[in-house]
Amino acid sequence: MSSPKKLETASNTVELRLRVRLWRNKGDRVALVPTMGALHEGHLALVRTAKAKAERVVVSIFVNPAQFAPHEDFGRYPRDMAKDRAMLEQQGEADLIYAPDAREMYPRDFATRVAVEGPAIGLESDFRPHFFSGVATVVTKLFIQCAPHFATFGEKDYQQLLVVKRLVKDLDLPLEIIGVPTIREPDGLALSSRNAYLNAEQRNIAAQLNRVLRATTERAKAGTSIPQAESEAAAALLTAGFDRVDYVALRDAETLAPVNALEKPARVLAAARIGAIRLIDNMNV
Amino acid sequence: MSSPKKLETASNTVELRLRVRLWRNKGDRVALVPTMGALHEGHLALVRTAKAKAERVVVSIFVNPAQFAPHEDFGRYPRDMAKDRAMLEQQGEADLIYAPDAREMYPRDFATRVAVEGPAIGLESDFRPHFFSGVATVVTKLFIQCAPHFATFGEKDYQQLLVVKRLVKDLDLPLEIIGVPTIREPDGLALSSRNAYLNAEQRNIAAQLNRVLRATTERAKAGTSIPQAESEAAAALLTAGFDRVDYVALRDAETLAPVNALEKPARVLAAARIGAIRLIDNMNV
Repeated sequence: MSSPKKLETASNTVELRLRVRLWRNKGDRVALVPTMGALHEGHLALVRTAKAKAERVVVSIFVNPAQFAPHEDFGRYPRDMAKDRAMLEQQGEADLIYAPDAREMYPRDFATRVAVEGPAIGLESDFRPHFFSGVATVVTKLFIQCAPHFATFGEKDYQQLLVVKRLVKDLDLPLEIIGVPTIREPDGLALSSRNAYLNAEQRNIAAQLNRVLRATTERAKAGTSIPQAESEAAAALLTAGFDRVDYVALRDAETLAPVNALEKPARVLAAARIGAIRLIDNMNV
Repeated sequence: MSSPKKLETASNTVELRLRVRLWRNKGDRVALVPTMGALHEGHLALVRTAKAKAERVVVSIFVNPAQFAPHEDFGRYPRDMAKDRAMLEQQGEADLIYAPDAREMYPRDFATRVAVEGPAIGLESDFRPHFFSGVATVVTKLFIQCAPHFATFGEKDYQQLLVVKRLVKDLDLPLEIIGVPTIREPDGLALSSRNAYLNAEQRNIAAQLNRVLRATTERAKAGTSIPQAESEAAAALLTAGFDRVDYVALRDAETLAPVNALEKPARVLAAARIGAIRLIDNMNV
């Protein structure tokens, strides 16, 4: 086992740009892994993919208030910088932590918002109307601050991945977005920082989300109509113990437009709640 | 008289970035002058200021559909690339014209918008609700495409200047915005590409806009209350022949917030119409 690599932290844009400029001047490519901390194996997979693309990897850790609604879990979202740092040092592939504070990201009189339509319409937006604008704004800022060649995002947040790709193209940001497959527990549960909220009973229910999505893709491929497959999946989630199903939807994998048949690549996406805990998952059909 | 400097044109982001990168690699600083063409002495002042700050000046010429409402003058906005080029070559201070077409700026499926509140609230926004979002989006794209060290904007569009400064700060764009004083005709009329719409009679009326604003600042400094000075100014514009006054407002020069007294730097701003032609002007109080 190699000894853990000591990681430096940049806490503002000036420090970040200084480091990135030195790397770029040497010809090193730079990849950014934007996170909200509470790191798990899913994040480490993003770092690993980043390191395979670029000589230098910056992991940003910022719990972004702009993407939480007032009633959501911004206050209780897990934060443990010492543990996050230890995980990254143990992995040894990140080169810098960028951990700006909220005043650095949203100074007094901050008044600008990046809003995306297209892939941001529907699904998550129907239940978290401010979410993608909060994500789009902070991600645009991070890209401009860091000026990376690449950034990695998990397919776990599949709609977010498409929204980020869209805004990068639309704003001509000179970087490539790389989607990274979802990392799962042995029983199929997608890794998520919010899984920490689940008690043992809820954890068992949560595992059914992925199973139901897998069954839904099989049924759709076997010829069940798409509306039928969607409503059967929602019913199955409620039977499995979920308290509420925000959506189960089979969509075009590139645009997220509704589809009538499985002609082009499709994706099934779902969001469901156990008490106040909201879980999402998705997969290729 | 020096012989005119032959100007090259970049018509897409790839060509633009290639040129700018070569300059930056040599250590040259780059200034961008965003325009919608129909150039006049006001634009040449922007170029002159840009050249005083940077070794290299890019003039972008793009009539941005996103900042016009459907009923506005996008279709009839004056366009004459050959004349614009000749003026810039005659002046000899620009190094490159960047003239993207609408498909380059807004490709199919374009779905992203930059929206600013703060200084964008009120005044122009009350009458052109989509204007600043259209400006903010195209200007963000131009800054990301060109990556200049500086960009110059006319004080003629004073609220726009504050909106652009705000978004550059908020999105951490690594450039400095430089405001350039308004260039005026001998009778005080602010130069504007839209002055080309004025017939001789309308041209005489138009000149009163600046005179009324000057009188308003004198009255406010002499002790007339701000609401009184504003309503006297609106009445004077109607008397002078304007058909409609969108606003005459004395505001905080930095935030555009309404003010009760002339304690901090203030600005008087106005928009008024002669028939379908809308003119704006502003000045320090």
